[in-house]
Amino acid sequence: MPLSRRACLLISCPDRPGIVASVSGFLFERGANIVQLDQYSTHPEEGTYFMRLEFDAEWVNGDRARIEREFAQQVAAAYQMDWRFAYADHIKRMAVFVSKEDHCLLELLWQWRWGDLRAEIPMVISNHDTLRETVESFGIPFYHLPITKETKRQQEEKALELMEGRVDFIVLARYMQILTGDFIQHYPNRIINIHHSFLPAFVGGRPYEQAYERGVKIIGATAHYVTEELDAGPIIEQDVARVDHRNDVAQLKAIGRNIERTVLARAVRWHIQDRILVHGNKTIVFAG
Amino acid sequence: MPLSRRACLLISCPDRPGIVASVSGFLFERGANIVQLDQYSTHPEEGTYFMRLEFDAEWVNGDRARIEREFAQQVAAAYQMDWRFAYADHIKRMAVFVSKEDHCLLELLWQWRWGDLRAEIPMVISNHDTLRETVESFGIPFYHLPITKETKRQQEEKALELMEGRVDFIVLARYMQILTGDFIQHYPNRIINIHHSFLPAFVGGRPYEQAYERGVKIIGATAHYVTEELDAGPIIEQDVARVDHRNDVAQLKAIGRNIERTVLARAVRWHIQDRILVHGNKTIVFAG
Amino acid sequence: MPLSRRACLLISCPDRPGIVASVSGFLFERGANIVQLDQYSTHPEEGTYFMRLEFDAEWVNGDRARIEREFAQQVAAAYQMDWRFAYADHIKRMAVFVSKEDHCLLELLWQWRWGDLRAEIPMVISNHDTLRETVESFGIPFYHLPITKETKRQQEEKALELMEGRVDFIVLARYMQILTGDFIQHYPNRIINIHHSFLPAFVGGRPYEQAYERGVKIIGATAHYVTEELDAGPIIEQDVARVDHRNDVAQLKAIGRNIERTVLARAVRWHIQDRILVHGNKTIVFAG
Amino acid sequence: MPLSRRACLLISCPDRPGIVASVSGFLFERGANIVQLDQYSTHPEEGTYFMRLEFDAEWVNGDRARIEREFAQQVAAAYQMDWRFAYADHIKRMAVFVSKEDHCLLELLWQWRWGDLRAEIPMVISNHDTLRETVESFGIPFYHLPITKETKRQQEEKALELMEGRVDFIVLARYMQILTGDFIQHYPNRIINIHHSFLPAFVGGRPYEQAYERGVKIIGATAHYVTEELDAGPIIEQDVARVDHRNDVAQLKAIGRNIERTVLARAVRWHIQDRILVHGNKTIVFAG
Repeated sequence: MPLSRRACLLISCPDRPGIVASVSGFLFERGANIVQLDQYSTHPEEGTYFMRLEFDAEWVNGDRARIEREFAQQVAAAYQMDWRFAYADHIKRMAVFVSKEDHCLLELLWQWRWGDLRAEIPMVISNHDTLRETVESFGIPFYHLPITKETKRQQEEKALELMEGRVDFIVLARYMQILTGDFIQHYPNRIINIHHSFLPAFVGGRPYEQAYERGVKIIGATAHYVTEELDAGPIIEQDVARVDHRNDVAQLKAIGRNIERTVLARAVRWHIQDRILVHGNKTIVFAG
Repeated sequence: MPLSRRACLLISCPDRPGIVASVSGFLFERGANIVQLDQYSTHPEEGTYFMRLEFDAEWVNGDRARIEREFAQQVAAAYQMDWRFAYADHIKRMAVFVSKEDHCLLELLWQWRWGDLRAEIPMVISNHDTLRETVESFGIPFYHLPITKETKRQQEEKALELMEGRVDFIVLARYMQILTGDFIQHYPNRIINIHHSFLPAFVGGRPYEQAYERGVKIIGATAHYVTEELDAGPIIEQDVARVDHRNDVAQLKAIGRNIERTVLARAVRWHIQDRILVHGNKTIVFAG
Repeated sequence: MPLSRRACLLISCPDRPGIVASVSGFLFERGANIVQLDQYSTHPEEGTYFMRLEFDAEWVNGDRARIEREFAQQVAAAYQMDWRFAYADHIKRMAVFVSKEDHCLLELLWQWRWGDLRAEIPMVISNHDTLRETVESFGIPFYHLPITKETKRQQEEKALELMEGRVDFIVLARYMQILTGDFIQHYPNRIINIHHSFLPAFVGGRPYEQAYERGVKIIGATAHYVTEELDAGPIIEQDVARVDHRNDVAQLKAIGRNIERTVLARAVRWHIQDRILVHGNKTIVFAG
Repeated sequence: MPLSRRACLLISCPDRPGIVASVSGFLFERGANIVQLDQYSTHPEEGTYFMRLEFDAEWVNGDRARIEREFAQQVAAAYQMDWRFAYADHIKRMAVFVSKEDHCLLELLWQWRWGDLRAEIPMVISNHDTLRETVESFGIPFYHLPITKETKRQQEEKALELMEGRVDFIVLARYMQILTGDFIQHYPNRIINIHHSFLPAFVGGRPYEQAYERGVKIIGATAHYVTEELDAGPIIEQDVARVDHRNDVAQLKAIGRNIERTVLARAVRWHIQDRILVHGNKTIVFAG
């Protein structure tokens, strides 16, 4: 099936009977074949309903605007739906922000090269010049925007300008700067960060040092959407690894590197595939 | 929501457009509220389609036969569906077969007592008398059917008689006898076995000894439906644990015991909740 | 090899060269065969050194006091060792404290009956009478010591009297009372608690509710020694399980039950086998 | 502590009392400080004993030959030891063999660049020219030795010449050629292969296809030393990942890629750190 005929429909609305019948009826009448369907309701009676439909249809290759208009009028309005169609031939464009550490960046670039992350990467932005050569060897433009306390807002402005109209979402691949609320508001639920701990354990700085001090037997990493409250945004994915008394902080970091890059790449893939819906401070992930 | 109004609808059929719309439309017109919906197609064009719908409806408490008839005529026929409704107030009845080892049996009985396995257990059948007291302390009848090469068929007959009309499915909780093909045909895809290895590794007897000899670094267990070909039926669930050179066969067995009982209990729970569909020699598990 | 000839030697001391040679030389001269040897140093130059030796020797069956005296004089003094011999024929005696939930208790009792926990259980103590029958069916005395704010100290006194000279260590198997500092001091690093979260995440009460609110993708449990600071004692073992948006609090608790009992049983086994050494607020676990 | 003073001593011999005392006494008399000590005996009475000692000593920086001679005469002879010293300043040299797939190769090269694999990589050898640019971008010489049925032995000869005196061990990072027995004998227990299944399940070709056909719920990868019997050499490390009915062969391969590279890198690291001892067809891995 050509990508030009494949689309996703994402819906959230108050739960009540008839949603599946209405949506699937609408699509069927327009010749769509449902390839994947996931749904979830926070509560069958008074909850919020979430749905992700992946389907193939002839019209996807044609008059998208008309069908969207019809969907809005004939289905979405009656159920007070938040909804959007995502078309498989619209490749999402991601900007990657990095500092000096390359393991998360390289994992993303490799998986991207292998075809496991179907996205465009129009730019990598960094507050250091360290990874320029690495990034450019992949044929990706690299922008160095050094940041001091005084220049943060100004440099964020520059980044926003660079990304204007060219970037759909941002991945913080071990970017060691805290973004301002102003910046975050430009990409709501579209900035993915990797935190190097099993949140909410070890919030804040130096989580591996904290983990070492506490003597935990398992360490982890957390990918989450960035919100104004530090390390408190909706969690997308987490994973862990066993450690023991023999592991010093350096070893925890080395073990952690592997968890971080795995977890981040998984979260980015799900975001690219429109598998994540945000509900308050939580995520519904229709992994597949 | 009272259980008397909750039901599952399970479907498999050749995949083609319109199934979701037809099924969900049928249910919506009859006042059903879909609580959970899972679907899977082996191939969007020429594949087999599987669906599990969990829903609440007033009529579930009433005229089930009529609705089933309507479904057969109005929906199922057109799509050549294999289908069945499973009603939440029909508690499945399971017979547990054991030999001398109690760990899988006890896990099932505990989870049953905790309410994690919503089933009835009308009987435990064993080829040894060892576990009588354990079983009876749970208020469950225990039948001792000792087996020799000569008496196997005769004793299987007795077991079938005991279960006649009283048992929906069978769990082999470390039952150390090979069932005959005749017996198995009475409960197709309704006998769950736990094999103490990560199938298809270490098929046959003495898997922990085999694992020890091979020097594997991970051991596992496999829950599967029993077919006439030994250890080759559809796999329902597997899990593993790390081991190392220090673990002798006795320790592998002790570690394995914990995997076996966990994996078996999970498979049994999914079976009870109608979450498993069999397709050829594989399972589709709509875990949840 | 008969148990009467098997022993463990546990040592901690400032690290410096010669410890292994001295200790192993001492044992070899007395005919011991080292079966297992684990060691760890927090730092090769100025660290603390920990050692666990498991060995077989004829004299273990005979004049223990004399050998211990010789060890103290000829080896331990020179290295400022904390040390103790643990003899395999001295079966540790554990008291289990429970409230109303039985899953951790039952896991311990089963593993004990299977021979996986080589201990004596002279008593189970509870602030509720709920689990009396369960406990007594294992032939273990059950003491009901109900607790109110006013009677807590008095009942702790009673528990201490009951255990006086009959109990080596205590397991809190989901005991829902906070012990006083006075009580804890009677069993320093000899009270094992299971906390139903992945500490230090979700300290305090209602951790599954907290985990649900935060939307984590993995939940866990932690076995630790009890200290006066709540939920902050040395961590012995942790484990986790994946969850997702579909899991409500009740399901998190059901999943968590399985982690809790596994983790607790593992910690208890290691304690019984003298595999845990405490260093400040951390543990060195020579698992095997 | 400078690397020039750090060494490992690896021993295997028939188990009998006194080994630890003799070895540690020998080292202590020569001023060594033991940093890590691991030991294992297949059986305390008539088994084989394995030991790995990591230590710091002044003489390591000096007269290694003399000390080795003394060890041979004063300790090793009496216990019939197989033994060797491995000096930390001797960096192991590894040749990597690849075909067209780069994921295992890249993982090794990255971890090597991060300093997680302390080795030299004097060459990468491939039967295809595909990965030349990738390899050379790391500053590593790349040799293209295309292979047909007719030229296999001749090309293996060439590879042996290229490696002669320059390579300590070989890593097959998804090298899709079967090595001849002659070739293997040049590097006994010094060729590490990654097999893309959870051995002994799915021996031979197309393991992901086999796994898909069998409907397993977990897939894995296995790093092992290469012996003349295909896929049957001593297992060093294994790991697994969960899969389900939705994963087609392409997805199994993508998931498998991540397991393969993780498992292989771990095995290579342990080999580099002299943590693996081979016993018959098994490994003792003193992981740390």
